[in-house]
Amino acid sequence: MSTQQDELAALLDAYREGTLERDAALSGIRAAFFQDLQHSTIDHDRRRRTGAAEVIYGQHKTPQQIADTFAALAETGGNVLATRVSPEAYELVESRVARAAYHRDAELVMLKQNAPDPAPTQIAVVTAGTSDYRVAEEAALTAEFYDSPVIRVSDVGVAGLHRLLSRIDTIRTARVVVVVAGMEGALPSVIGGLVDKPVIAVPTSVGYGAAFDGVAALLGMLTSCASGVGVVNIDNGFGAGFLANMINRL
Amino acid sequence: MSTQQDELAALLDAYREGTLERDAALSGIRAAFFQDLQHSTIDHDRRRRTGAAEVIYGQHKTPQQIADTFAALAETGGNVLATRVSPEAYELVESRVARAAYHRDAELVMLKQNAPDPAPTQIAVVTAGTSDYRVAEEAALTAEFYDSPVIRVSDVGVAGLHRLLSRIDTIRTARVVVVVAGMEGALPSVIGGLVDKPVIAVPTSVGYGAAFDGVAALLGMLTSCASGVGVVNIDNGFGAGFLANMINRL
Amino acid sequence: MSTQQDELAALLDAYREGTLERDAALSGIRAAFFQDLQHSTIDHDRRRRTGAAEVIYGQHKTPQQIADTFAALAETGGNVLATRVSPEAYELVESRVARAAYHRDAELVMLKQNAPDPAPTQIAVVTAGTSDYRVAEEAALTAEFYDSPVIRVSDVGVAGLHRLLSRIDTIRTARVVVVVAGMEGALPSVIGGLVDKPVIAVPTSVGYGAAFDGVAALLGMLTSCASGVGVVNIDNGFGAGFLANMINRL
Amino acid sequence: MSTQQDELAALLDAYREGTLERDAALSGIRAAFFQDLQHSTIDHDRRRRTGAAEVIYGQHKTPQQIADTFAALAETGGNVLATRVSPEAYELVESRVARAAYHRDAELVMLKQNAPDPAPTQIAVVTAGTSDYRVAEEAALTAEFYDSPVIRVSDVGVAGLHRLLSRIDTIRTARVVVVVAGMEGALPSVIGGLVDKPVIAVPTSVGYGAAFDGVAALLGMLTSCASGVGVVNIDNGFGAGFLANMINRL
Amino acid sequence: MSTQQDELAALLDAYREGTLERDAALSGIRAAFFQDLQHSTIDHDRRRRTGAAEVIYGQHKTPQQIADTFAALAETGGNVLATRVSPEAYELVESRVARAAYHRDAELVMLKQNAPDPAPTQIAVVTAGTSDYRVAEEAALTAEFYDSPVIRVSDVGVAGLHRLLSRIDTIRTARVVVVVAGMEGALPSVIGGLVDKPVIAVPTSVGYGAAFDGVAALLGMLTSCASGVGVVNIDNGFGAGFLANMINRL
Amino acid sequence: MSTQQDELAALLDAYREGTLERDAALSGIRAAFFQDLQHSTIDHDRRRRTGAAEVIYGQHKTPQQIADTFAALAETGGNVLATRVSPEAYELVESRVARAAYHRDAELVMLKQNAPDPAPTQIAVVTAGTSDYRVAEEAALTAEFYDSPVIRVSDVGVAGLHRLLSRIDTIRTARVVVVVAGMEGALPSVIGGLVDKPVIAVPTSVGYGAAFDGVAALLGMLTSCASGVGVVNIDNGFGAGFLANMINRL
Amino acid sequence: MSTQQDELAALLDAYREGTLERDAALSGIRAAFFQDLQHSTIDHDRRRRTGAAEVIYGQHKTPQQIADTFAALAETGGNVLATRVSPEAYELVESRVARAAYHRDAELVMLKQNAPDPAPTQIAVVTAGTSDYRVAEEAALTAEFYDSPVIRVSDVGVAGLHRLLSRIDTIRTARVVVVVAGMEGALPSVIGGLVDKPVIAVPTSVGYGAAFDGVAALLGMLTSCASGVGVVNIDNGFGAGFLANMINRL
Amino acid sequence: MSTQQDELAALLDAYREGTLERDAALSGIRAAFFQDLQHSTIDHDRRRRTGAAEVIYGQHKTPQQIADTFAALAETGGNVLATRVSPEAYELVESRVARAAYHRDAELVMLKQNAPDPAPTQIAVVTAGTSDYRVAEEAALTAEFYDSPVIRVSDVGVAGLHRLLSRIDTIRTARVVVVVAGMEGALPSVIGGLVDKPVIAVPTSVGYGAAFDGVAALLGMLTSCASGVGVVNIDNGFGAGFLANMINRL
Repeated sequence: MSTQQDELAALLDAYREGTLERDAALSGIRAAFFQDLQHSTIDHDRRRRTGAAEVIYGQHKTPQQIADTFAALAETGGNVLATRVSPEAYELVESRVARAAYHRDAELVMLKQNAPDPAPTQIAVVTAGTSDYRVAEEAALTAEFYDSPVIRVSDVGVAGLHRLLSRIDTIRTARVVVVVAGMEGALPSVIGGLVDKPVIAVPTSVGYGAAFDGVAALLGMLTSCASGVGVVNIDNGFGAGFLANMINRL
Repeated sequence: MSTQQDELAALLDAYREGTLERDAALSGIRAAFFQDLQHSTIDHDRRRRTGAAEVIYGQHKTPQQIADTFAALAETGGNVLATRVSPEAYELVESRVARAAYHRDAELVMLKQNAPDPAPTQIAVVTAGTSDYRVAEEAALTAEFYDSPVIRVSDVGVAGLHRLLSRIDTIRTARVVVVVAGMEGALPSVIGGLVDKPVIAVPTSVGYGAAFDGVAALLGMLTSCASGVGVVNIDNGFGAGFLANMINRL
Repeated sequence: MSTQQDELAALLDAYREGTLERDAALSGIRAAFFQDLQHSTIDHDRRRRTGAAEVIYGQHKTPQQIADTFAALAETGGNVLATRVSPEAYELVESRVARAAYHRDAELVMLKQNAPDPAPTQIAVVTAGTSDYRVAEEAALTAEFYDSPVIRVSDVGVAGLHRLLSRIDTIRTARVVVVVAGMEGALPSVIGGLVDKPVIAVPTSVGYGAAFDGVAALLGMLTSCASGVGVVNIDNGFGAGFLANMINRL
Repeated sequence: MSTQQDELAALLDAYREGTLERDAALSGIRAAFFQDLQHSTIDHDRRRRTGAAEVIYGQHKTPQQIADTFAALAETGGNVLATRVSPEAYELVESRVARAAYHRDAELVMLKQNAPDPAPTQIAVVTAGTSDYRVAEEAALTAEFYDSPVIRVSDVGVAGLHRLLSRIDTIRTARVVVVVAGMEGALPSVIGGLVDKPVIAVPTSVGYGAAFDGVAALLGMLTSCASGVGVVNIDNGFGAGFLANMINRL
Repeated sequence: MSTQQDELAALLDAYREGTLERDAALSGIRAAFFQDLQHSTIDHDRRRRTGAAEVIYGQHKTPQQIADTFAALAETGGNVLATRVSPEAYELVESRVARAAYHRDAELVMLKQNAPDPAPTQIAVVTAGTSDYRVAEEAALTAEFYDSPVIRVSDVGVAGLHRLLSRIDTIRTARVVVVVAGMEGALPSVIGGLVDKPVIAVPTSVGYGAAFDGVAALLGMLTSCASGVGVVNIDNGFGAGFLANMINRL
Repeated sequence: MSTQQDELAALLDAYREGTLERDAALSGIRAAFFQDLQHSTIDHDRRRRTGAAEVIYGQHKTPQQIADTFAALAETGGNVLATRVSPEAYELVESRVARAAYHRDAELVMLKQNAPDPAPTQIAVVTAGTSDYRVAEEAALTAEFYDSPVIRVSDVGVAGLHRLLSRIDTIRTARVVVVVAGMEGALPSVIGGLVDKPVIAVPTSVGYGAAFDGVAALLGMLTSCASGVGVVNIDNGFGAGFLANMINRL
Repeated sequence: MSTQQDELAALLDAYREGTLERDAALSGIRAAFFQDLQHSTIDHDRRRRTGAAEVIYGQHKTPQQIADTFAALAETGGNVLATRVSPEAYELVESRVARAAYHRDAELVMLKQNAPDPAPTQIAVVTAGTSDYRVAEEAALTAEFYDSPVIRVSDVGVAGLHRLLSRIDTIRTARVVVVVAGMEGALPSVIGGLVDKPVIAVPTSVGYGAAFDGVAALLGMLTSCASGVGVVNIDNGFGAGFLANMINRL
Repeated sequence: MSTQQDELAALLDAYREGTLERDAALSGIRAAFFQDLQHSTIDHDRRRRTGAAEVIYGQHKTPQQIADTFAALAETGGNVLATRVSPEAYELVESRVARAAYHRDAELVMLKQNAPDPAPTQIAVVTAGTSDYRVAEEAALTAEFYDSPVIRVSDVGVAGLHRLLSRIDTIRTARVVVVVAGMEGALPSVIGGLVDKPVIAVPTSVGYGAAFDGVAALLGMLTSCASGVGVVNIDNGFGAGFLANMINRL
């Protein structure tokens, strides 16, 4: 907050000293106030360490819109992340920003222009089945985009408990655990009972019939009998990776 | 089917021999045919070994209706089971059939008048939490009513996996496993992955909010990633116990 | 369990005899324990008689993923089953495993490399309408893949009761009955009342409007007034066939 | 329509003859027109034969409101029907209109003051289970209130097909069939396939869990594989009885 | 029923006279009984007047399946109706049965080979908007296929009441009224209040957003404040036309 | 905004003149800014004419909480409105603020301490059935609380169109029309087609079964085929009355 | 109404004077009456100022139907608006009515043939995100079609509050505010708390997973904690623009 | 894990030294292994600092069950927390454990027997309205039970933005923010945009009609346009407080 306070004080003093008209002072006060709010969503600390990362949600946007925004943000010199970008849209982005890298499996485009600032602790991204891979990669790559190290543990669904148990020590090395699961979405409950760390549960739309495009998994995660579980929207890998990095950096 | 065939043949011969009028023969044929269908739902073998058990669904019925039906069935000399019977309704039943036993926790009334015919193999009834107790008891007592031995394994929800694993060998001794769970209903998936026996999953209405009175558990069980799981209606302990006994006696 | 016990005993003795370091012994104990859990999901008996059948769920997987997994499993010498495989995906599978057979109607690919081990009793797969054919075949072929004989009874929906009644004796010859129905899903209720065997009900997404892609049939089956009915997910022919074989082999 | 035409012609002539002012004529034309619409909902033929039956929907109304309206309608000399009337509300009605008869099971109050005008054909009211009795009686008594003869066939749910088949000839004697069922609501499909008459299906809120207070039965009836079935709202016995009488009198 | 009785009597007499073996007699009795049930769904009277009309539901069927069934039924010499037939499927039908007529708007194929037997009274098919046309034509053409005369009243939605009122006298000439409406589905309530005839309400999937593919209209029709309304499934024009003809011919 | 600008200018000048410390000036700027936002929700014009009306939502509050808040607001000298107040809660309010008036039917408590400022135009509140009365009164009394004249038109549901048409000229005299309806909620569509004024549609929870506590009416109103209709929450009479007054005073 | 009254009076006098037969007079009265109802939906004042604007809802209509109707309405000389018109359909319209203008983003076609009649006050159309653009433009262009000036405020979603606050003074200049938002649909609540004007909330289908195609936004808007909010159907930009203009012109 | 390793090593050595039989050794290994899993859910660090806090979920439990469990846990000397305890149940608890403190508003019972171990950073618990108080207190008291300091910010719903903005600096002092809101549940989105800390969103069942007992708020929170938001079940204050403390102590 000190920036705003300083700015307001400078305005006050400039007016007192007569170097600023009253209207200009009033206008400056108003601007300072709003700017404060505006900056609140950007987090200077994070900006500094992650390179002022900006995110573009690609869904519902045309390739042209994505490419235009990406190029504009790239020019500011910071890191840029775009989610849910189709291969066609990426072609257009690449023609504008050659160094933008595409992660086809997760449909993400990334541009990292700032020096990395790795977090000291790591995040585990755990998936129930191979079909949950796209969403899990969206989470993992998002966390990595923000310089949080990620360990991936795949295909440890609850129907094959031995696979999960043989990896549980690895999962326990993480500071926060993202669990991605479709169908009945039971994996966060089991992991929540085995690991004493915050669990971010991501339901996926994997499944058919009574899975109802992820509703079964979503309800299962919300009603989990385990404590310490927070849930994000169906298929929202980005949201999980973002929140995981945020917690990992506390 | 041979009974019906014999009956029809007797009718044919009686008519041929003139000891039966044509109208009476036609009427007898019709009756024999329907009786056959009727008997198909009764299963003489089961009747013989379980004592012609009849079941009264108490829900939506008045105490008077329950007591009347119970008394009528009791007089036929067989076993009688009534589900979802309130203490008030039981009082009325008991005043009519003194030997009828009440299982308050499961809201069941039983009268066993036939010699027991124990099944050689047993059923496991497993519950996730203590709140699932009523439904689990309805399942277990129903199976026992039909003379299937039952082993009960309680409070082994997936968030405390160690409790389940320490009991898994016990569960494996059963021929068929009834799993009762509310909230996210994940237990059948985990057990289905650990036990190579048919699993009958019973969602319960335990939970609040997004549990939606058992819908979360129901969807979780229907979309289970484990194979070998069949699901019954929410809170339908009777249905699970009945089906388990049927499978157990195959 | 004896395998694990033997293994642990051997480890203990090797350590006692000094042929094994303590760390190696501890590591071996850990491995033995997890392996035990792992084996629990495989069922050696079933493996022996069905040829270590492995199942690939094709839905949500690319043709490449399906073909790779199929080929890898085929090389182990056992039987392999893949469900929900499109013709395009099958072409790729076939180019890798020439003997893999495709059941186009059910979208299944099968490879049987072990000597068959037929079950002594049979399963009935009953369908309400011709539109339910794909799901019913998925169930029937799955059961046959595990060497359970199957009798198929088709197009006996409840609005044409005479067709059902004329086939009911055939259905009664089975040890367990799979009933596949869309729309109102009433067939399991009617069959459950006519046959004293376990009924596995499979709702299908056949129908329109208030059928809600199988929800009407699913609810109808869950609330069936008949006893002895277990339900699987909408269109889950595989699950029904798997469970039916499991019960048939008890 | 002729009444309105006559009335308008009389107004025209009166104006022509100068016995009516223009404003009064215009006002009269307007009134005649609206009155025509008003009468359209009353059906003079039905009024004559049923005694201008008026219906009071008791639900959401206070005993006082019900009694007041009932007494007012009774004074017009016609027949009066009130649905969903609690015993408390009936006491108040009876204190005002002593001859009003209460049907406790169906929660109906009836007053018949006109000579009956029996319909020449009859209606069948068929119920799946004894728990559907209240709704079925609401349907049957409503039809009888409008002087349609009713035959009742009870407890012939689809899980006990023999009971239904032994009554099917009775059901076939009706001109229109009302079928009342809760749980999976399969009975109209089966009857629709056996009887070549219009079927009015009434889902009831009987059942629990996935019955969802009648939704399962409602969806089952709407998606029935039988033709010739029209559905009314859950528990709407009155609506079914009213429509059945309307069809019966065509 | 007399046919069956005669048949059974003949069997009895043949056995008495020795011209039939007992096994053959028993087999014949069984067949006669089932045939009776079978015939019950066909209605000889309707068969005679409509030419034993058979219906093929085209949805979920391949063009080949539709064409095969159509051709087979056409050869029996009766009338044939197929619903939900795409233009591609019709081409195949036409190549086999040249005289089959296609109603593109309603996606129906009809073949009439019997002499028409017109019903003496008529059906009104009323639509709220032009977007409901396909479903309304499915209803109207179905009724006409069964030789019920149909009057069509289109585009009289409740937001333009004057259009409805100017056509209400026409609607009143019908014996039964089919009302087709999407969006809020209010038209049956308004017509039910204006016309003293049975109303068959058909919700359509016309609309967007909170129309939920016809759910809003369906709920609106089920909860209609007008009496005398029966509802069929969303977009079920065939069902409405079938039921309307059935009522019209009573 | 001028108030805030003046306040800020005064602060600036005071600081320039040295009568204010810099910290106090900064603190004052902050306060002024927030106060501006705060005032934005109060609307000085409305405050002046309605007496600074404050609203207490009684639902989910204890009688004590309601009474305390009511008394506190009453002491400020303005008008006070409390919605969803039970008779028990009102007793407590009355014991504290004797002049507070209770409208039992609408469960509202009002205290008017300012001189009325009647709006020049009026609002129509139209109801489909007598069961919608409570919600309609909540709307009408709310509008009257804010000094908008209200005309009430009751019991003009769409199944009795003549009643509505005979009142339509009255409805047309209003500047904005609130339409309250349960069950299928069709009335706003019909009125929207007859009146060229904004219609505020209020679904009520009146009805049973497929009315789903107001959902059917809500969906019907949202998908209305009439233009010029805005919808509020189920049973939200207050919201409708508030919005109607707001529009009426534009 | 005076037109109708005059017309009726003329008919009366013509009959009195003998220049009109009674049947012709009766027929004329009937016509006049219905015409009155018909005109009620057209609003002569609005017709005069907006050029008798007619609206074609393009959804569910073929390009041919749209073009035919558009051309027919264009010939009457008034303004014409068509919504949800695809580029293909527009091509056909343009080939018939060359001056018809296409707004590709909003999928609207407009023809303005009357002199504009600008409203003295303006409407604000506010959007939460750029993905809501199509729906917002449908609302804004509709309002402009009816000659209401529109100010657009875009991309001021609640997660970036500073952007909204910096535009709030602009929004406050409007007489009525249309707020368009997908996902959680929170913007109308926030704006409703900041602006003392009627808010018309438009949920959009933007979002994924638990957004359920606009349901989350719809429910959020209906349950808004702000007063003075009316809601239209999901994606119903036209409805919001129409209602906003109606309120703006009061 | 070292405990388990030590235990296993001791077993190995005892067996090597001959002081332990092989069967006893095997049994001990098995026990050690399961105990390891068991301990994994308890977290010795947390146990040490919070006093081995155990939690009893009171819902669905009888007062007797709650009191018995509470007393048993209290005897172990650690801290005990019981949620959703009615006043009646508390009376019983208090009669057994006199020092157990009741928080009536949140329906929590707490017993703290260990020395507090305050977390160095604090949690903010923010509520939208006073009706959300019970759930918010459940969250705050749970966090305090685990010795995390809590700051409460109440009644800052989004419709009164000034109240929220005047408290935002206070909220920003927390390390993790719990946001509790019913109705449209928009508050987490707004706070998520203003605060760069993890937000745990708790939907409450406050509201009526389309709030659907918390579903509207739940969907709103899941589809929030703000990043960094995790959601728990409706009314799950305990879950939010538990997760917040877990994150706060990382």
